[in-house]
Amino acid sequence: MIDLRSDTLTQPTKEMRDAIYTATVGDDVYGEDPTINKLEKLAAEITGKEAALFVTSGTQGNQLAVLAKCSPGDEIIVESESHIFFYEGAAISALAGVQPRVIEGVRGEMDPLLVKQAIRTEDIHFPDTTLICLENTHNRSGGSVVSLENMKKIYEVAKEAGIPVHIDGARLFNAAVATNKNVKDFTQYCDSVQFCLSKGLGSPVGSILAGDREFIQKARKWRKRLGGGMRQSGFLAASGIISLIKMVDRLAEDHHKARRLADAIEDMESLVVVNRPDTNIVIMNIENTKQRNEEFLERLKQEGVLAVSFGEGQIRLTTHYDVSEEDIDHAISALRRVVG
Amino acid sequence: MIDLRSDTLTQPTKEMRDAIYTATVGDDVYGEDPTINKLEKLAAEITGKEAALFVTSGTQGNQLAVLAKCSPGDEIIVESESHIFFYEGAAISALAGVQPRVIEGVRGEMDPLLVKQAIRTEDIHFPDTTLICLENTHNRSGGSVVSLENMKKIYEVAKEAGIPVHIDGARLFNAAVATNKNVKDFTQYCDSVQFCLSKGLGSPVGSILAGDREFIQKARKWRKRLGGGMRQSGFLAASGIISLIKMVDRLAEDHHKARRLADAIEDMESLVVVNRPDTNIVIMNIENTKQRNEEFLERLKQEGVLAVSFGEGQIRLTTHYDVSEEDIDHAISALRRVVG
Amino acid sequence: MIDLRSDTLTQPTKEMRDAIYTATVGDDVYGEDPTINKLEKLAAEITGKEAALFVTSGTQGNQLAVLAKCSPGDEIIVESESHIFFYEGAAISALAGVQPRVIEGVRGEMDPLLVKQAIRTEDIHFPDTTLICLENTHNRSGGSVVSLENMKKIYEVAKEAGIPVHIDGARLFNAAVATNKNVKDFTQYCDSVQFCLSKGLGSPVGSILAGDREFIQKARKWRKRLGGGMRQSGFLAASGIISLIKMVDRLAEDHHKARRLADAIEDMESLVVVNRPDTNIVIMNIENTKQRNEEFLERLKQEGVLAVSFGEGQIRLTTHYDVSEEDIDHAISALRRVVG
Amino acid sequence: MIDLRSDTLTQPTKEMRDAIYTATVGDDVYGEDPTINKLEKLAAEITGKEAALFVTSGTQGNQLAVLAKCSPGDEIIVESESHIFFYEGAAISALAGVQPRVIEGVRGEMDPLLVKQAIRTEDIHFPDTTLICLENTHNRSGGSVVSLENMKKIYEVAKEAGIPVHIDGARLFNAAVATNKNVKDFTQYCDSVQFCLSKGLGSPVGSILAGDREFIQKARKWRKRLGGGMRQSGFLAASGIISLIKMVDRLAEDHHKARRLADAIEDMESLVVVNRPDTNIVIMNIENTKQRNEEFLERLKQEGVLAVSFGEGQIRLTTHYDVSEEDIDHAISALRRVVG
Ligand SMILES: [Ca+2]
Ligand SMILES: [Ca+2]
Ligand SMILES: [Ca+2]
Ligand SMILES: [Ca+2]
Ligand SMILES: [Ca+2]
Ligand SMILES: [Ca+2]
Repeated sequence: MIDLRSDTLTQPTKEMRDAIYTATVGDDVYGEDPTINKLEKLAAEITGKEAALFVTSGTQGNQLAVLAKCSPGDEIIVESESHIFFYEGAAISALAGVQPRVIEGVRGEMDPLLVKQAIRTEDIHFPDTTLICLENTHNRSGGSVVSLENMKKIYEVAKEAGIPVHIDGARLFNAAVATNKNVKDFTQYCDSVQFCLSKGLGSPVGSILAGDREFIQKARKWRKRLGGGMRQSGFLAASGIISLIKMVDRLAEDHHKARRLADAIEDMESLVVVNRPDTNIVIMNIENTKQRNEEFLERLKQEGVLAVSFGEGQIRLTTHYDVSEEDIDHAISALRRVVG
Repeated sequence: MIDLRSDTLTQPTKEMRDAIYTATVGDDVYGEDPTINKLEKLAAEITGKEAALFVTSGTQGNQLAVLAKCSPGDEIIVESESHIFFYEGAAISALAGVQPRVIEGVRGEMDPLLVKQAIRTEDIHFPDTTLICLENTHNRSGGSVVSLENMKKIYEVAKEAGIPVHIDGARLFNAAVATNKNVKDFTQYCDSVQFCLSKGLGSPVGSILAGDREFIQKARKWRKRLGGGMRQSGFLAASGIISLIKMVDRLAEDHHKARRLADAIEDMESLVVVNRPDTNIVIMNIENTKQRNEEFLERLKQEGVLAVSFGEGQIRLTTHYDVSEEDIDHAISALRRVVG
Repeated sequence: MIDLRSDTLTQPTKEMRDAIYTATVGDDVYGEDPTINKLEKLAAEITGKEAALFVTSGTQGNQLAVLAKCSPGDEIIVESESHIFFYEGAAISALAGVQPRVIEGVRGEMDPLLVKQAIRTEDIHFPDTTLICLENTHNRSGGSVVSLENMKKIYEVAKEAGIPVHIDGARLFNAAVATNKNVKDFTQYCDSVQFCLSKGLGSPVGSILAGDREFIQKARKWRKRLGGGMRQSGFLAASGIISLIKMVDRLAEDHHKARRLADAIEDMESLVVVNRPDTNIVIMNIENTKQRNEEFLERLKQEGVLAVSFGEGQIRLTTHYDVSEEDIDHAISALRRVVG
Repeated sequence: MIDLRSDTLTQPTKEMRDAIYTATVGDDVYGEDPTINKLEKLAAEITGKEAALFVTSGTQGNQLAVLAKCSPGDEIIVESESHIFFYEGAAISALAGVQPRVIEGVRGEMDPLLVKQAIRTEDIHFPDTTLICLENTHNRSGGSVVSLENMKKIYEVAKEAGIPVHIDGARLFNAAVATNKNVKDFTQYCDSVQFCLSKGLGSPVGSILAGDREFIQKARKWRKRLGGGMRQSGFLAASGIISLIKMVDRLAEDHHKARRLADAIEDMESLVVVNRPDTNIVIMNIENTKQRNEEFLERLKQEGVLAVSFGEGQIRLTTHYDVSEEDIDHAISALRRVVG
């Protein structure tokens, strides 16, 4: 089965399993897990931040950022289809008591002027605006890269207003690789960043939250409240280190596979590629096939390919480490048979 | 001074003061204030609901509706410039832990199809959609009336999905009077409604929350937590009863004054009326005067007229009981002098 | 009917009604209600604090103190039967997200050493201790006065630890009058204080929250979120001013009436006074009468006297302005008939 | 170094590492991790509950129980030194908005009558009591076993009142082994239970929450909000399965080591064993040594033994898999040298 449902589905590599097997571990609640400490140090360096924290998921990293930066009754600016607003079960409101102020972006990019206008002035009726969140790459826009230029402008708006910026960088390494930039080129325009070790980077579990020392200290205490403080979690960190050292550059292959897939889909009469696939995600519109999502996905499955619904009439395909170039060929053939 | 800043600024009438002076009161925490009980019964009848609750403000009524209907981690659908989202200090998130899902309306009306699409399906990443809020009349659209037709359609969408509808009817009586309808014609399309006694209806303090008995019981307990349980609050209810009996029909006068004001403004070259004034609010664009809001408002004040800024380049004027037809003439003259 | 259920049940005096009738009012959300402004200034002076805020209830005042001083995940130290813990619907946790740490007091006084030991040290497992609350007089201990000496010691413990102290002074004026002290003698040992205008001081509605300017500013914004921002609330303030000017000294009469009541109860064989009535509350144990609370209260009602249950086997009687010395005589006779 | 600080410090066994290395994994957010599924099924069987959920810590399991069972403004009954109240950063209030009602237990056992009396009646001033939490074994009482008899009585009180019971069974297997009972004998008296795989059972990370199906479904959604939804978490589950199959019976050895340690300490003149060590925890009072905790612990460390402070004058020693009987001999000798 060629599984294009998500890049979270990858199996860890042999090297990761080996690293897990031999990991030196300790009790991280006591700060004594050397592998966790090593990963956190490495992640801080890579993002150019003072400190980093291993967390169990991108959602946890994002939520900790909000909990550590905001107070109940605050407002945070988020893109209208961002993961933190769309896919985290309203946790920003449930846990941190903050209200999202959404701005509709274009391919994930929010207009800096709209961001500026959305910042609240002082008024007894208004919440305080205390955080601006970007998502890069932007999942629901099909893995589109939010440009450095856009990030810089929003960061300037934020700094002028004295408001911190958080990047939900679940797939930030994809953005860096796709633009031939360093992750630091992106993280220079934020106060905190979360990125996942478990998507394109292939680790079984975990994400990183990075920022300044005081922020990470606060986040660490909130992580304990959320039950994210773990014991010998170095096993997970061992794989995370491999992800950062060995798996970053190869993201280019995933992007290449996605482009090939998109090109082939574009060539099929009844399918339309909805996004411009900057990275490893392809979204296609299947309405011209007259098939409903469910039916289309079932037929695709019969042909040995898995994908996911992305709103009625749209289907998302995600490339990753466990999908080879040959698998892409097979997937293209399968699609051709389904649209027949 | 002709005060067009808000209809909340009215002084209570002589009749209200008399009613307050002679009010029979008791301890409402014990349920023993006869005037409160009378007002709540009257309000329930007028809105066609099982029960009603006196609250100290429209904000309190709205928040209680959310607290009584929703749980933390839920999502509620609101218009993108509605009071409950825009002007209540993010309290829905701070107090009830719910996330607003905004839909941009046209003159306060949300497209029922967009409402339907915004309702979440079951998915572990998604909050549950547990409330749909309408605002009628819609303040930031300039007191526009949300039509019965629109309300009916949204209510049908809601019922199909099993989701309750709440009306923020701070100025619902304005909507009813402006359309020659009964308040019940509107409240038939909601499960709960809040309306203010303190705006066009002229009372010094207070709003009503109405709905079914179980809902009001829950809201009453949450009111206690918010500190809105009062003792001899019959003094405030005494005026509220006058509002409901004597002040409703005269809202037509406020609407007439607003139309006259709008017509005159429209005639002035450098001013543009931004809204179509359905009720008692006029929003004008002053950009052509080349004056900034602050300057314009100061000059208007020098001429004996108060108004408020409504976003840069826009000014809001609100008519009410304490502004006579003659005051409107004066205000028009004053505006002419200011725009020169 | 002689109503000894609570001092919240008083009818406003003729003077209060007159003051309400003639009150000059304005829109307090705009800060333009002169009577509210006058009351808040007066209350700040009396408590020796920088600023004060009119709120609709003691519960609202207490909750605002917690909301303005604490963050979610904090712990606050409270007496184990204090109103803020026992009678406010868990609002401190629901609204402010703080956890109460209870200390069992003696007649409402917490041992300063226990307070000191309850303050949390820095540890990732621990909440931060960010508020210490006292209640004076202490309702559930029968209106007992928390001594200045006890308050001073707790305040010193708090200052050493850098933690603010809040007084729930719903009946603080009773404490002052009972000890022949000034309210300021008590409020010198706190950072914020709430007191009620609506209990022994006889006003229909309202309480005051006082503290430093920054605190009151934060509390004012939270009051808006709770829906406690009102319009022409000067009507309520007009009575509150009478309470502060005319009704304080006469609390001594309520205390005298309570002592007479307690002495007479003590003389009745089957009744035992449970508290030492420092102020206006008498708690008696009726177990020796072999009557259940419900039955006892019903028979007392037949005799023209109302009181309330205070846990099985105990009944609370509260004296106030609307109960005369003669009423006390009648109440004593009634009790004698009931215990037979 | 002989590490008696906590049983969380154990290194996973060779068998665990092997199981981790060879684990079959999948994406658990999709419900496709076979090893997670196997563990959850096994855990449900062992506890006699319909369903179970793997979580990253005992704290996360406890918090999910509260989030899934309670609403903001509720009150939950907890022992006054229970982990959920004492050591979880006030998370029950911060996340779930509930207020703890504490009952002081004896060796962790709450008096069922006190539990019954603490359940709130219906009153507008009162929160609803919606959960009763037990901790078994009880950490701060020194790992004492809460007896089946006590649990049964509390469960009966709870059922009569219609309130669910949750067991924080971080070390419930210790209780079962120490009393020669089955875990099900304990879990029959609860609606939900959390137990840790990472303490005496030796796994690197993880706990289980078990209960009925609907409860687990709710908890799963809340786990996602807390960021506890993981991807290929089967690696952790692989070890958890070993814990449940291979590590339970051997807890008896830990208990034996603790008793030997306690007996030896009891024999030392200046040391007093504070608890009756039912399981694997020994708490000793060192006040007679005239040494402060810090000094004592440092000297002990010099002798090659680690322990932790447990309040001034008290030190906790915990036995576990990585401490052999010989290590206990060494620790006893070390203690003798330190007390001189
Ligand atoms: Ca993976
Ligand atoms: Ca008014
Ligand atoms: Ca014009
Ligand atoms: Ca009164
Ligand atoms: Ca007696
Ligand atoms: Ca371990």
